[in-house]
Amino acid sequence: MAPAGGPGAKKGILERLENGEVVVGDGSFLLTLEKRGYVKAGLWTPEAVVEYPNAVRQLHMEFLRAGSNVMQTFTFSASEDNMESKWEDVNAAACDLAREVAGKGDALVAGGICQTSAYTHHKDEARVKRLFQRQLDVFARKNVDFLIAEYFEHAEEAMWAVEVLKALGKPVAATMCIGPDGDMHGVSPGECAVKLVKAGAAIVGVNCRFGPSTSLKTMKLMKAGLQAAGSKAHLMVQSLGFHTPDCGKGGFVDLPEYPFGLEPRAATRWDIQKYAREAYKLGVRYIGGCCGFEPYHIRAIAEELAPERGFWPPASDKHGSWGSSLNMHTKPWIRARARREYWENLLPASGRPFCPSLSQPDV
Amino acid sequence: MAPAGGPGAKKGILERLENGEVVVGDGSFLLTLEKRGYVKAGLWTPEAVVEYPNAVRQLHMEFLRAGSNVMQTFTFSASEDNMESKWEDVNAAACDLAREVAGKGDALVAGGICQTSAYTHHKDEARVKRLFQRQLDVFARKNVDFLIAEYFEHAEEAMWAVEVLKALGKPVAATMCIGPDGDMHGVSPGECAVKLVKAGAAIVGVNCRFGPSTSLKTMKLMKAGLQAAGSKAHLMVQSLGFHTPDCGKGGFVDLPEYPFGLEPRAATRWDIQKYAREAYKLGVRYIGGCCGFEPYHIRAIAEELAPERGFWPPASDKHGSWGSSLNMHTKPWIRARARREYWENLLPASGRPFCPSLSQPDV
Amino acid sequence: MAPAGGPGAKKGILERLENGEVVVGDGSFLLTLEKRGYVKAGLWTPEAVVEYPNAVRQLHMEFLRAGSNVMQTFTFSASEDNMESKWEDVNAAACDLAREVAGKGDALVAGGICQTSAYTHHKDEARVKRLFQRQLDVFARKNVDFLIAEYFEHAEEAMWAVEVLKALGKPVAATMCIGPDGDMHGVSPGECAVKLVKAGAAIVGVNCRFGPSTSLKTMKLMKAGLQAAGSKAHLMVQSLGFHTPDCGKGGFVDLPEYPFGLEPRAATRWDIQKYAREAYKLGVRYIGGCCGFEPYHIRAIAEELAPERGFWPPASDKHGSWGSSLNMHTKPWIRARARREYWENLLPASGRPFCPSLSQPDV
Amino acid sequence: MAPAGGPGAKKGILERLENGEVVVGDGSFLLTLEKRGYVKAGLWTPEAVVEYPNAVRQLHMEFLRAGSNVMQTFTFSASEDNMESKWEDVNAAACDLAREVAGKGDALVAGGICQTSAYTHHKDEARVKRLFQRQLDVFARKNVDFLIAEYFEHAEEAMWAVEVLKALGKPVAATMCIGPDGDMHGVSPGECAVKLVKAGAAIVGVNCRFGPSTSLKTMKLMKAGLQAAGSKAHLMVQSLGFHTPDCGKGGFVDLPEYPFGLEPRAATRWDIQKYAREAYKLGVRYIGGCCGFEPYHIRAIAEELAPERGFWPPASDKHGSWGSSLNMHTKPWIRARARREYWENLLPASGRPFCPSLSQPDV
Repeated sequence: MAPAGGPGAKKGILERLENGEVVVGDGSFLLTLEKRGYVKAGLWTPEAVVEYPNAVRQLHMEFLRAGSNVMQTFTFSASEDNMESKWEDVNAAACDLAREVAGKGDALVAGGICQTSAYTHHKDEARVKRLFQRQLDVFARKNVDFLIAEYFEHAEEAMWAVEVLKALGKPVAATMCIGPDGDMHGVSPGECAVKLVKAGAAIVGVNCRFGPSTSLKTMKLMKAGLQAAGSKAHLMVQSLGFHTPDCGKGGFVDLPEYPFGLEPRAATRWDIQKYAREAYKLGVRYIGGCCGFEPYHIRAIAEELAPERGFWPPASDKHGSWGSSLNMHTKPWIRARARREYWENLLPASGRPFCPSLSQPDV
Repeated sequence: MAPAGGPGAKKGILERLENGEVVVGDGSFLLTLEKRGYVKAGLWTPEAVVEYPNAVRQLHMEFLRAGSNVMQTFTFSASEDNMESKWEDVNAAACDLAREVAGKGDALVAGGICQTSAYTHHKDEARVKRLFQRQLDVFARKNVDFLIAEYFEHAEEAMWAVEVLKALGKPVAATMCIGPDGDMHGVSPGECAVKLVKAGAAIVGVNCRFGPSTSLKTMKLMKAGLQAAGSKAHLMVQSLGFHTPDCGKGGFVDLPEYPFGLEPRAATRWDIQKYAREAYKLGVRYIGGCCGFEPYHIRAIAEELAPERGFWPPASDKHGSWGSSLNMHTKPWIRARARREYWENLLPASGRPFCPSLSQPDV
Repeated sequence: MAPAGGPGAKKGILERLENGEVVVGDGSFLLTLEKRGYVKAGLWTPEAVVEYPNAVRQLHMEFLRAGSNVMQTFTFSASEDNMESKWEDVNAAACDLAREVAGKGDALVAGGICQTSAYTHHKDEARVKRLFQRQLDVFARKNVDFLIAEYFEHAEEAMWAVEVLKALGKPVAATMCIGPDGDMHGVSPGECAVKLVKAGAAIVGVNCRFGPSTSLKTMKLMKAGLQAAGSKAHLMVQSLGFHTPDCGKGGFVDLPEYPFGLEPRAATRWDIQKYAREAYKLGVRYIGGCCGFEPYHIRAIAEELAPERGFWPPASDKHGSWGSSLNMHTKPWIRARARREYWENLLPASGRPFCPSLSQPDV
Repeated sequence: MAPAGGPGAKKGILERLENGEVVVGDGSFLLTLEKRGYVKAGLWTPEAVVEYPNAVRQLHMEFLRAGSNVMQTFTFSASEDNMESKWEDVNAAACDLAREVAGKGDALVAGGICQTSAYTHHKDEARVKRLFQRQLDVFARKNVDFLIAEYFEHAEEAMWAVEVLKALGKPVAATMCIGPDGDMHGVSPGECAVKLVKAGAAIVGVNCRFGPSTSLKTMKLMKAGLQAAGSKAHLMVQSLGFHTPDCGKGGFVDLPEYPFGLEPRAATRWDIQKYAREAYKLGVRYIGGCCGFEPYHIRAIAEELAPERGFWPPASDKHGSWGSSLNMHTKPWIRARARREYWENLLPASGRPFCPSLSQPDV
């Protein structure tokens, strides 16, 4: 798994996107490591990078094998307002882990920040920006390859984040955790995208909170908004790995199943191949996942777009495309499942006849 | 996480069970490592122990942290008839990994064998037993703590396995992958249990193929069969982590969703707490999981039975019982989910209104 | 619609059954007339025969046109203990209405009685039998063609009813409202059937409380019980027109949807064709329906068994078999539905994504 | 059931609406009479008025008892292009039946026409209008109270209909069978409403093709369109009695369940009370139903709005409001259902675990 062009030859994120290459993002850290026993639901902070580095490294490795081109530092919620004095060690350790694994393949390191609880409490721009700046100082010291401002529900705070990050001179991606109805103040997806570009983001899109189909609807609106404004940016999507057609404006956190009953909503690998294909058709070239996106979901993106990319991800050595490895099975009716039409058309049962298909969001 | 009584002080499996202690088993290796990118569906062989030992070690660690008292060697399907010349190295490496991790906590190492494809092809007792013996030779050399014969769909082959294993003089557990309708030759669960005890198993039960509720139904029948025959054994259950009320005799492999569309059937942690409680009430004291049982499901067993065991598993440092950690959340309607009644009564939606609740098995 | 053999030529119920003919029963009166505005839920008494005879006559006519060979007097719950002084006029008027409509086609009149509330209160055989006798006196005076004791949940009371009815010297059919688990005292379906035959019934079976599939399961058990006992009787089934796979022993009244939310469970005509075919294969020759069985459901029985009977019911002049009349439709995709395979394989959606597939019975 | 103010005292449709009274429409004829055995699916023509007048009269009576203030002539599809020479007798007989039953209560007679197949074939305005005129001539001769142009999927044809009808000098209501996406040529609901008013309709709205919730969404758009245009009309809604959240633009005919598998979608009486309340809140004062609306659904409208209207419909003598009559039941858990909260909150199960919640429309 040496980087394609040898050490030092890695292309930057913008170089890739400007070449028209597909960049495969990574997937779920918080929810996945919660299930593995290393992250606590509620505050959802990433001290695991310090406490259990092997567990975090392993997850990075799985995404790398699955085909990710980006190792995001596991620094979600790791600003000073959530983590107090631990924040600095956590950010530094997260950078080291991401860099170590990125070095084993063709992946870049992206330093990531997200919305603050400070913003909703007082909207003090200087104070919020200072929180971002401190994380950025660590990313600068650790020399990450580019920066991601993600999981913003207010366009205003996302713009502040981009303004801080762009000062470092590295490419900045910005994604909001919004759906088709726009941000919490009623700013539409199209306007959000335009604002983020104006603030300095080269890559814009959405992450988290909404499932694959809903996130792509939001991306369509962002794309249309950018076009209407004559604004240009690369498009990026990192949706949930859960189906949420019943979400309201606040996304999956408002569904009654969040966060401990989401299992029946989990996407199959085939759902994700469809998502990858549709994202690609829409012109999105940075395609990854967020909560609920397990390594095999990322592999599904890389396999779906293998024809366009010209290569398969390493983890495909353990996966027969479209179920082909089932033709080794002893039972003929299971061998009959070793084909694309079967899995594309399957409508999987929940095994839960006492449960509904959809929920009413709590808000 | 040093073993309770210091190095060398670990109690054996039978000592624990005879004391009335709950033994928490481990969970899913094949399906879980398939999703992490290290096992290939179809043949489902465990060469990952040699190829990607870090990934296997990490999963063992997660189960240990979740509260498992048993590290099963990852030797499923690892007999010579499936793996050719690789089989010996794989069995040896699997023992070393299990021992290494078991040494970090209060867990025993169990050498595991399962049904052979040879049995269904020719039913040659000598040849099948030779396959078991060769794996046993490795387990003997590596000095595992006890032995498990698991995933047998024919009582006859399971008896052969037990007969081979018991010769080593270590405790033998035997579990069949059957449901309430019994084995593939029509031997009822009660009869199966009696046969396994006669063959020499000290612990009997079921694993895999059927979901939690169905597996407990089978256990009830095994228990009744043993009682009726005046036969005594410890009871063990390691069900699927999927709901399968619609299974036929062959279990989940015959469901159209197997193996790549099972997501909507995945159990929640609350489903597993219920399973653990019901298993306990039924008198089962060795309680674990099989395919689909992720580390947090094992933690759910350990948390549910913490009052009986007198301690919490290590991974509970990252889990608030019954969702209690949600009371840190900023949104009041999410804080309102931080209580037992909420999660016990939740009927989680599938997010898939175009899909049914149940499927017709293919056979 | 003159009777096949001219006035006076009608064959009796036993003559038909002994010839191997299929007798098509009628369907739902109480629930159907409740929806039409003439019966009140709760007590479910049939004073409509006196108050709104046109409405009752019309429903009889619809069943006759649909192919029914039996007009049951609408005397359900019309014993003295439920209706006080009104009971006698109601029974008499019901006989007249049934006879009037039966005279317009090839149908017999069956006088019907059902379980009493007296039985569960005091189990006073003499008193219960007296209630039956009084209804029988009216049936005798009105010269019904045969008698049906139906909707009994206790074999003992059903036997009392048969004992009273047989004294008139006319054929007696007896059906219980039980499922596969048997009567409320634990008498199995097979035993119930044997008891009813011993008491004097020439035709035995089940009616109401359980859906088509469940009722046929019960019929299989009755048939097996009769065979094992060397007992002989004609078989009869009149199931609900609702799907109730989730019923407990008490049947649909215990489901939370009873009686005002049963709509989503209503059978399609195709479900009923399947039911008719399976009943026929099982050897049942008196096939009708109970609550929820609308006229078109009865027509579905008559159409499914038209090949065996040699003729179509009158109402088939307004029905193309298997949807064939849709080939007149202007839209091609609707014309494409004009074929048997389409309707046989349709899995109809509920249009209710917030509702479950199954319910837990209240008891 | 004499009309409130004695013979001859009936208020006209506009007088009622201008007084702010609620006018309760009638319900389903075609689908209901198909199930009763008197109408053939496919062409869906109403020759039953001639062939089986008792059956049609009975259904009118049921709607009258349920609280309908309008007896629509059963003349749907009864123009010359569908019925050839039979058309004239059918229209005349339908008027007589409607008048006869209307005379038994406080109901008006409305002559009804609907879209022609001629329109889609050649769009020849003169020819289409001639078809309307011929039906109108019968209505004039029979002196109906007002006129309804209903079930139009193109605004243009609906306008032609209104233009013809208004020439008689009686009030004209016009309803289209469209959903929120507007007519088949892309004319929005708001524009449709404005056009209908311009053409001369005093009452506008929607009927058929879409379920209660969807129809109310369309009504909101119509109301908004009228307001924006400064146009005034009374509002009218007659939705399906089926839930169709999954409909496309073409409505329920495009759903795979149409017309013989719609049963699981049937509305409960409680669904219809909610519909009546929401329609009322929206300002709709002419509230009825279309296909699938059985007499008890109409009663549900009349009961829900009884406080506003000041009286209950006749058929409420056979109905305890909100299930109150269940408090007579012998089983305590059924008595516990005799209350409003129970039925308002019930999420009724389909009894069909192998079926989905929603379907993909065929177009």
